[in-house]
Amino acid sequence: MAGPDEGSEPRPAPAGAAGAAGAAGVVGVVGAGQLARMLQEAAGPLAVPLVVMAERGDDAAAQVVPDVVLAAAGSREGLRTLAGRCSVVTFEHELLDLDELRALEADGVTLRPGIATLEVAIDKAAMRRRFERAGLPGPAYRDLSAAGADGGPPGLERLAAFADASGWPVVLKASRGGYDGRGVWVVADIGEAATVCAAAERAGTALMAEEHVVVDRELAVLVARRPGGQLVAWPPVETAQVGGVCREVLVPGSLEPAEREAAVELAAAAATEAAAAGVLAVELFSSGGRLLVNEIAARPHNSGHWTIEGSVTSQFENHLRAVLDLPLGATEPTAPHVASVNVFGDDLGGDPLGRRAAALAVEGAHVHLYGKTSRPGRKLGHVTVCGEEAGAVRARAWAAARALGTPVPDELGVATGVA
Amino acid sequence: MAGPDEGSEPRPAPAGAAGAAGAAGVVGVVGAGQLARMLQEAAGPLAVPLVVMAERGDDAAAQVVPDVVLAAAGSREGLRTLAGRCSVVTFEHELLDLDELRALEADGVTLRPGIATLEVAIDKAAMRRRFERAGLPGPAYRDLSAAGADGGPPGLERLAAFADASGWPVVLKASRGGYDGRGVWVVADIGEAATVCAAAERAGTALMAEEHVVVDRELAVLVARRPGGQLVAWPPVETAQVGGVCREVLVPGSLEPAEREAAVELAAAAATEAAAAGVLAVELFSSGGRLLVNEIAARPHNSGHWTIEGSVTSQFENHLRAVLDLPLGATEPTAPHVASVNVFGDDLGGDPLGRRAAALAVEGAHVHLYGKTSRPGRKLGHVTVCGEEAGAVRARAWAAARALGTPVPDELGVATGVA
Repeated sequence: MAGPDEGSEPRPAPAGAAGAAGAAGVVGVVGAGQLARMLQEAAGPLAVPLVVMAERGDDAAAQVVPDVVLAAAGSREGLRTLAGRCSVVTFEHELLDLDELRALEADGVTLRPGIATLEVAIDKAAMRRRFERAGLPGPAYRDLSAAGADGGPPGLERLAAFADASGWPVVLKASRGGYDGRGVWVVADIGEAATVCAAAERAGTALMAEEHVVVDRELAVLVARRPGGQLVAWPPVETAQVGGVCREVLVPGSLEPAEREAAVELAAAAATEAAAAGVLAVELFSSGGRLLVNEIAARPHNSGHWTIEGSVTSQFENHLRAVLDLPLGATEPTAPHVASVNVFGDDLGGDPLGRRAAALAVEGAHVHLYGKTSRPGRKLGHVTVCGEEAGAVRARAWAAARALGTPVPDELGVATGVA
Repeated sequence: MAGPDEGSEPRPAPAGAAGAAGAAGVVGVVGAGQLARMLQEAAGPLAVPLVVMAERGDDAAAQVVPDVVLAAAGSREGLRTLAGRCSVVTFEHELLDLDELRALEADGVTLRPGIATLEVAIDKAAMRRRFERAGLPGPAYRDLSAAGADGGPPGLERLAAFADASGWPVVLKASRGGYDGRGVWVVADIGEAATVCAAAERAGTALMAEEHVVVDRELAVLVARRPGGQLVAWPPVETAQVGGVCREVLVPGSLEPAEREAAVELAAAAATEAAAAGVLAVELFSSGGRLLVNEIAARPHNSGHWTIEGSVTSQFENHLRAVLDLPLGATEPTAPHVASVNVFGDDLGGDPLGRRAAALAVEGAHVHLYGKTSRPGRKLGHVTVCGEEAGAVRARAWAAARALGTPVPDELGVATGVA
């Protein structure tokens, strides 16, 4: 493990490797959504120049980063141009073509995280296999893809055999590309399963099956890891999902110290197993006293936006420090309680900027808007509040999110009269 | 006074007023140094687009703001182009041509702060006159300029009369344009004074004289004020100057509660008297139990960089909120003690980026670099540390600043063995 001040910052790519010499200390980001936007907010103080690969000039990050490579997602040309302008390439989403990235890495481009991490992070079946072998607990699962059959019976037969053991319902997941509840189906019986499997086959989507876990609580732990192995973890958070979409993050929420400790240990083991470089988010189920790995993301993550104000060092700053192999910053919380609530577009579709003043009038509300136009259900921003008392902190975060037009889901039991 | 959520955000300038229609909600910044750079860091989360007027494409803020107007400082054409691209114009320095700005305001461009504030903020003699009339305490002074003579005797004679009353030494100041100790001369007798007066006359520099105050402590209070009068103040800080240049800011430093309260009251009165819109920094002398206004700046200020991590809302965010007439954010500190130390180039002239890793290895050090190349004595950045214990916080801030190459002045009594 590298000592804290022995950082070996990545060098520029060799001249010609990616069409042009990369620039020392410049971080290239594949993707230009809100995560890249918040990376830019963290990059300024560290004097880290960013270059982002955006599909459109008005993508969230393209609005605030002077150096933009405009290219279709996954474009070979775009990736090569990006790599030529930076010394390290990192990622804000998982819609990646690993073969293209392998070719870049072979040409001497520094990817952080690297291919070994991405293989685990962007394919849920690969992640389950890897973590199972490493002894990290997760739900029972079965890879239903042709590649995962290993000469066994076809998908639906394997699923039936899996359900005989794990019981119905079963969770079906697209191995790749799902997010925010997309690509996940809970099926009650073999008939429903057959419908999903048939649709997936038509779409060319590889599926996997998972045991339907009875979830007591959902947790997330963020870890930042340097290439040499130095690792820091933020305090675990409790997340609340509605329809598979994260609506709020509470720190520490209802988590007990022993559970928090076990969660950090599990997340650190996962990050080490995945050979992470940068931030790795580990989403966990707490179920009957057990912790199970639900999903991972090898990038800054929605469950860590609270760290911008709620922790000494934000996930965005530590992601940059990690991918540049610089010493990582402290992850202690800055207040006893932190709540972060996502802002979504409502059916009115109104511009959140028109409602900004009302949200800013909520005491202590840190308002983050991503520069996106409103559509119903579209994630437009988030609000974080830090303070001494859990209930007040949560109520103020929701008050500000509501002021910005966010519909309040009944499921979360948020009192709507509070401010 | 406008209620907290009744903000009347500035409208775009009338079409044609400044060559083109301004853009709603866009803030134009005259100047592109580190203050504009840090405004950009605060603008992202609020989804406030900035446009900066820069002299060079590699100015500190021009590196991180996509929308840049390249123009010589004070250029009429540049100002008009800037005004045409935004709905409100604000300033990061005082090198302003008030006649140009009056013409802009007359054409319907919204300036925040406006002319009335700038008249007081960029002319020290005007500030003294205004505050004296309002009963705000300051050192005894005399305007030595022709304009300030009001038919009285010429400069040197007036100075001699002033010194007869206030005693030697006397402080001579350029009424306009001085900063970081430039434009200030402490003269011991009429001979030294004559030399400075003659040089100033040759340079066309208007001078004023001030009583030489025996300073026990230097304080600064930052206030943010909306156009309608809503006002918030950050906790007063103790500053340490060496050679007229601020080296460190301690919060709360050695200030007693009663002094802090009086300082806030004085700063709020000054901001109201100056009709501030945006941040106003008030630098104060504590002298023999009295507080005296030393200088003011109608913009974010070096004495407030600690607010980025050390306060719920930073001076940069509240400056943007104030000039857009949005509700102001809370100014409570986030920790019992905060220390902020400026980073300067040393005689080695090394690139601070090469030393960044060592600074980031200091526990809890928030490193801010402004993207400037190193020259001896050039301000390159700052470091802030927040924590429970004043001594440890200060020692760590200095350790990180020193790691970045900052020479440690003997005058401040900073132990150099600490980390």
